Amino acid sequence: MAEINLQEIHDLFIDVAHEAGRMMLTATPSHLSSGTKKNCLPPFSPPLLLQLTLFPAADLVTETDRAVEKMVSTRLLSSYPTYSFIGEETFVPGDPTTALSDAPTFIVDPVDGTTNFVHAFPAFCISLGFTVNKVPSVGVIYNPFLDELYTGIKGKGSFVTRKGGVKEQLPLRKEPEPLVDLSTCLIGAEWGSDRTGVNFDLKSKVFRKLAASKDEGGAMVHSLRCVGSAALNLAYVAAGQQDVFWEGGCWAWDVAAGWCILVEAGGIMVSGNPGEEVTVDGRKYLAVRGANREGQKAIVEEFWKVIGDGKLVYGS
Amino acid sequence: MAEINLQEIHDLFIDVAHEAGRMMLTATPSHLSSGTKKNCLPPFSPPLLLQLTLFPAADLVTETDRAVEKMVSTRLLSSYPTYSFIGEETFVPGDPTTALSDAPTFIVDPVDGTTNFVHAFPAFCISLGFTVNKVPSVGVIYNPFLDELYTGIKGKGSFVTRKGGVKEQLPLRKEPEPLVDLSTCLIGAEWGSDRTGVNFDLKSKVFRKLAASKDEGGAMVHSLRCVGSAALNLAYVAAGQQDVFWEGGCWAWDVAAGWCILVEAGGIMVSGNPGEEVTVDGRKYLAVRGANREGQKAIVEEFWKVIGDGKLVYGS
Repeated sequence: MAEINLQEIHDLFIDVAHEAGRMMLTATPSHLSSGTKKNCLPPFSPPLLLQLTLFPAADLVTETDRAVEKMVSTRLLSSYPTYSFIGEETFVPGDPTTALSDAPTFIVDPVDGTTNFVHAFPAFCISLGFTVNKVPSVGVIYNPFLDELYTGIKGKGSFVTRKGGVKEQLPLRKEPEPLVDLSTCLIGAEWGSDRTGVNFDLKSKVFRKLAASKDEGGAMVHSLRCVGSAALNLAYVAAGQQDVFWEGGCWAWDVAAGWCILVEAGGIMVSGNPGEEVTVDGRKYLAVRGANREGQKAIVEEFWKVIGDGKLVYGS
Repeated sequence: MAEINLQEIHDLFIDVAHEAGRMMLTATPSHLSSGTKKNCLPPFSPPLLLQLTLFPAADLVTETDRAVEKMVSTRLLSSYPTYSFIGEETFVPGDPTTALSDAPTFIVDPVDGTTNFVHAFPAFCISLGFTVNKVPSVGVIYNPFLDELYTGIKGKGSFVTRKGGVKEQLPLRKEPEPLVDLSTCLIGAEWGSDRTGVNFDLKSKVFRKLAASKDEGGAMVHSLRCVGSAALNLAYVAAGQQDVFWEGGCWAWDVAAGWCILVEAGGIMVSGNPGEEVTVDGRKYLAVRGANREGQKAIVEEFWKVIGDGKLVYGS
């Protein structure tokens, strides 16, 4: 695989991400007009996308997801016809032909944070990941509404570019504050769409225990945040703007890009279940920001202790 | 009180908000440098603020809070020396001289979302409110990191200006989708800093019940968001980017500005406890976005039903 040019894939991802961003903003002009203008994006109005403005919210998101994924897969596979492609819209659970393999693979969420997209809540993005031997090797996450671009290449660091300005290396703090324990941590954690059964029960217990005071046996974390996008959560952890992100139930396309960006910023990814191995398609994740290694280790151990005997269970 | 010029106060608030924004960004240059550059703000570096960069996070927030409030109260009271001023940093619980009265009153949170400020999580702001007879009559909320300015004047509508661009009237959708029930709602709800006792217990139960599926007796809301700033939550509800915000425990300075902006965007504010009267300094709030009146009423009733027999209890 020596011939794979990660930089070239990274550059193509950025171009594709900007095109996807224009499609997303065009799909909801009544909400996002100012964002569009301020981003100084060139106009983009293929007939298909213009139609989307007429759809009700639920259809709008489906149609936009599909249209963006189609554009992305077409562009990526026309440049790299021998690589694999996994996308949220075309993935079939249990089907080995859409499962993650060791092959060079594009892993794409066309619109991450679809609930936000429907409500015009400003935390949605495209997430473009690339794995080789199942290792996240390129990641690009783009939030078109805020015009924030997060990028990473294996071995070459990760970066954020806001509003087309200066490209800043991640983490934002050149000397991150040491991690000590969860009480100083800002934690990203999402309710998700799975609202019944053992996973929901465990999540709601863990959220409460993370928040609760030490007197109540809790971790008394600095606070909890729910922005509604796994990819952006990972970007914030990579940047050092959140200390931790814990998630179960999301998919490879939600995390592949962010994982690369996180690791290149000195962060670590472990399993969302205590003691288990973490894999890109394992659907259980715990991300910790760049910091002193012993601090990262202490955070993982304390978090796993909060989960206790609980266990997230998801099919793949 | 016919002589009160709300427009003039609004204009002063905007000027003060921008100065406060520069102070906040200057206080954390290592985190926020790109924001500063991209916002094209003029340089601002009084000796006091430059010192703040040397402080550890906990002191930094306290010092910035104090420095911003001092600047704000000095500027507002030099223009309006007979008006009252309530600020987070100078408020004394139980002291009648700092309690809200019918007098024209500035109500200011110098840095709302202080936990975010410490972590450089991009959801912090200054919140500048003005009440007459305890009615929110002017509101300005400014997030300096994203350069988002929310403004409202009683009887004159509310607006957002992003990145110095076009001033857009709120809500963003000119014809907001009708509200039906909580299952379609994006809800803002915060854990806050009170992590023990009856209020914490009620909050964690309500969060779980909001999220839970109908089978489990829950409301199965579209999703829950925690951005960590009451003022920004109200701004999002005013804009229609969140449908509902429920909060207990925050203070008049967290909501006075947002309340005015919300109501001017067609939203409503009721009590965070079922059936109680809502007041600016009552510390329990439920905000619903602009929509059809029967829909707003249905949302309030369904939300209060989720709270059930529970009751938030806070001193003032």
